[in-house]
Amino acid sequence: MAKARAPRKIPAQQEAAAAVKAEAVAATALEKGELITSETQVQTGQFKEEEPGVWEGYVEWEKYPEKKKVGHELMKATKFPPPPEFQLAPLPKRNPVLYGDLYKDFHHAIGLDTVPEYSWGRVLKEKASTMTHVLAFPYNGEPNHEFLMKDPITPNEDHFVRNHGGIPKCVRPDKYKLQIGGKVNKEISISLADLRDPQKFPQQKLAVTLQCCGTRRIEQIALYPGHGLLVPNAPWPEGAIGNAVYTGVLLKDVLERACDGINVDKVKAHAEFISADTYFKFNQVYNYAVSVPYRFVDKDSVMLAWEMNGKPLPEIHGYPLRIVVPGVIGARSAKWVTRINILDEPSWGPVQRMEYLYYCNTQYGKHNTLFSNGFSIERMPVSSAIMKPNDGNIIIHDGQIKLEGWAYSGGENWVERVECSVDGGFTWYPVPEENLSKKHYYTWRLWKASIPLDMEGWCEVLVRAWDSSCNTQPISVRSVWNWDLHVTQSCHKIKVYSVNRTKPLTAQRLKEYEEAGLDFASEPITRPVPWPLESMEDYKARYNKYPREPQD
Amino acid sequence: MAKARAPRKIPAQQEAAAAVKAEAVAATALEKGELITSETQVQTGQFKEEEPGVWEGYVEWEKYPEKKKVGHELMKATKFPPPPEFQLAPLPKRNPVLYGDLYKDFHHAIGLDTVPEYSWGRVLKEKASTMTHVLAFPYNGEPNHEFLMKDPITPNEDHFVRNHGGIPKCVRPDKYKLQIGGKVNKEISISLADLRDPQKFPQQKLAVTLQCCGTRRIEQIALYPGHGLLVPNAPWPEGAIGNAVYTGVLLKDVLERACDGINVDKVKAHAEFISADTYFKFNQVYNYAVSVPYRFVDKDSVMLAWEMNGKPLPEIHGYPLRIVVPGVIGARSAKWVTRINILDEPSWGPVQRMEYLYYCNTQYGKHNTLFSNGFSIERMPVSSAIMKPNDGNIIIHDGQIKLEGWAYSGGENWVERVECSVDGGFTWYPVPEENLSKKHYYTWRLWKASIPLDMEGWCEVLVRAWDSSCNTQPISVRSVWNWDLHVTQSCHKIKVYSVNRTKPLTAQRLKEYEEAGLDFASEPITRPVPWPLESMEDYKARYNKYPREPQD
Repeated sequence: MAKARAPRKIPAQQEAAAAVKAEAVAATALEKGELITSETQVQTGQFKEEEPGVWEGYVEWEKYPEKKKVGHELMKATKFPPPPEFQLAPLPKRNPVLYGDLYKDFHHAIGLDTVPEYSWGRVLKEKASTMTHVLAFPYNGEPNHEFLMKDPITPNEDHFVRNHGGIPKCVRPDKYKLQIGGKVNKEISISLADLRDPQKFPQQKLAVTLQCCGTRRIEQIALYPGHGLLVPNAPWPEGAIGNAVYTGVLLKDVLERACDGINVDKVKAHAEFISADTYFKFNQVYNYAVSVPYRFVDKDSVMLAWEMNGKPLPEIHGYPLRIVVPGVIGARSAKWVTRINILDEPSWGPVQRMEYLYYCNTQYGKHNTLFSNGFSIERMPVSSAIMKPNDGNIIIHDGQIKLEGWAYSGGENWVERVECSVDGGFTWYPVPEENLSKKHYYTWRLWKASIPLDMEGWCEVLVRAWDSSCNTQPISVRSVWNWDLHVTQSCHKIKVYSVNRTKPLTAQRLKEYEEAGLDFASEPITRPVPWPLESMEDYKARYNKYPREPQD
Repeated sequence: MAKARAPRKIPAQQEAAAAVKAEAVAATALEKGELITSETQVQTGQFKEEEPGVWEGYVEWEKYPEKKKVGHELMKATKFPPPPEFQLAPLPKRNPVLYGDLYKDFHHAIGLDTVPEYSWGRVLKEKASTMTHVLAFPYNGEPNHEFLMKDPITPNEDHFVRNHGGIPKCVRPDKYKLQIGGKVNKEISISLADLRDPQKFPQQKLAVTLQCCGTRRIEQIALYPGHGLLVPNAPWPEGAIGNAVYTGVLLKDVLERACDGINVDKVKAHAEFISADTYFKFNQVYNYAVSVPYRFVDKDSVMLAWEMNGKPLPEIHGYPLRIVVPGVIGARSAKWVTRINILDEPSWGPVQRMEYLYYCNTQYGKHNTLFSNGFSIERMPVSSAIMKPNDGNIIIHDGQIKLEGWAYSGGENWVERVECSVDGGFTWYPVPEENLSKKHYYTWRLWKASIPLDMEGWCEVLVRAWDSSCNTQPISVRSVWNWDLHVTQSCHKIKVYSVNRTKPLTAQRLKEYEEAGLDFASEPITRPVPWPLESMEDYKARYNKYPREPQD
């Protein structure tokens, strides 16, 4: 893939000046320990992998501030080009769409040379060859839309992936230990075997839909480009969502039975999840770290999962152990989890505090955004998408257009109703209940519809869902636009070219094409008709009957 | 330019099948003489230039059906690739945008080999180097928008050009003769000298705005691609409009004084203009031919012009003589005019009858369009455009945004009012009269405005005009969309990124950029801020003051 890399230019002055400033800010913050997550135990760390022989590609940063400083120095010493400016230009027509060169460079800068290549290897091994690789590294990919519609349960090889770093490999799962600490009555270090022992913790199987809050971001990019994250925003289409049955135990059970519970106000408490993958922000190095309110742990079946659809968790999805937080932005369902901390506030990991913030949809842009202008994206709102047909398709029909897609709502909501419009959002037709997949508390619903369509030419087809709390979706993308281009929950709109065979002239024109050996549907709709639209005789006759100009 | 040509593929089956069908239709029509304009005198024509020594690159087709047949045979014998499919893909970022290979191939097929190169040479000689060449052949180009706004009178070298064929060269204007025939009391053949003799005809100077009805077509292409003409629709931005002072005589005066008037009902009569350039349609060859209702000749100062802004008419604009029809689609103002016929119906030239038809905006597409579904585009409706700033610009301002543009209405209307909106069309601010250029019966008005703008981020800036008959413009492109993508008279909308310096946080962020040696305005708006948006101290302080989650 290196060959295929897009050429990159570094505006030296920009890069240098920015580096100076970023460095200053970050250094100060580092001294204050502000950018370090709650674990503050300090050791003189060597720059080695944690638990060699157990993990490969896992460097523990959070335990060793000294090691973080070395990583920071190495990052500062490297000049990185700015991310490619794809948002103001059309996306490259290729797969992978984006290569993620910048994040590869980050890993090389601190000596994690093999991680990008290893991660890509896992993609090729674990994912269907039909995936759309939206960003090659860190890997972001979504499935072929037809496959996604086949079954409410998404096969592992078709399930979307949104990784934030490389894939660490656990080579000795038998030696793997999960640390649980922070404000618990008893800190523990627990093995997979103990976690999986049904005598110790009741096992759970739960169908959970996970969604990246970047789903359908491509619509926001098209209308109002935003600044995105440090790595280019993944220009997601409609497939950054999937549904799987996870096997594991409830975090709540583990905390209560193995840690004797937590010793902090349950209302204010957060559960922090720290992973084995390495994350970068403003020249600092971290382990991926996020948190969720303890309320969710208490009420929403937050799981420690080791199986996905009855199979061992794939490496790309977090083997040997991942967090699954139902109803919440996928970023909180940490993979390759190594440590859980109970805190009295949200994690200070940058993914928690500097990313996945929902900023005002105007007024707060690059020039005056503050982290505190945004609120953390946690539970996902009601949303939906049309997966079939696709934008720009020519639809030859007999007065009814067939549509398929998904609908989902997060938190404790489920989808109650799905409606479609073929006239740009003026008239809405409900999808009959029998055309919706079964209700579950934490899953999407797939739907199929056949909607009356008379008009011909370009029509605008929309879908909207209503959830169990009567939430629904706004019609325009603008109404949900936000500076970081998250949560595109406006009605999904596609344009299709309607050809209604029930209209006599249409039937006749289709016949003409057939007689001429042309396939109307496979012709670009913009190709001129290759013969006069009407015989001169008919044209003259009609002209004489209805002259263009008044006769008196 | 040949080198730079885009690769072209011929779907053989498609091309062949289409050719068979088109040929059959055309041949039948030809036998009936249906596709021939009013001049029916038949000679055994050789395939030579008309009046050698007077013209170069001018072949007379309309007088010689035999010659047309030979041309038709030559066209049939050649396989042409279909026009490039640019409408469904992003336009190439180059100048010329489109090369017009297909029309070049047409000319080569009938032996007019030198015409394309000669025409391009005239472009380079007569037009400013800053032109945007929308289509290199036949030449379609528009000026740099800033130049267009400098003066209500457009300099010749900046005036847009929409040619339908190559440029014929009149080498002996002293031998040039204009034929006038058809339903006149006396057919004449008149020299330039006689036309320009003030004793014979009163001379006129008239400021006239000419507009291609394809102006702003690019907006229709972006939303709802259409089938376009035989050559790719020129993807015009906002500059296919210009205003010049023409010197000449009124056609009405010439008809009355030299031809003793016309001998047909003035209400039904049309004046047909036939030009020296060659036009192609469905494998037939023609001279460019259009017509206008005699009413316009009678009432609307239709001119025979030999001067443009006090200079001899440039070759690219019709030297030695062109028609100027005020208030009407530019296509009727025929260039290099060789013959005028008075008819009792519109010309049957394909440009008149098969092009520039305004089809229904839906329901009539490729599959069921008939020529008789459309009506001829004659007088132009009220329209306007923002020429400064441009779509996507970053505007750093102090609460007022400056806008510039044009507004125009055809027929006997003029622009009375121009209004701007910076909130997507909700609130409208009138442009003060003193910021509008002077009113004339047949010209546009240039305008400048300064509109209050508080919001920051992407805002939608629109303009609309009101004419002397109280016509105004619809807001959405969809409401004016039509199958051939003509007359984009909906409100012109651009998106600009507003940075309001009067907001304290904005001023502070701009200062940060300045201190870091960065130029905010020249940075792509999508580039991430290269340092944390806020110090961790401030972030924590604000977080503690306004926690994300309720505390009880």
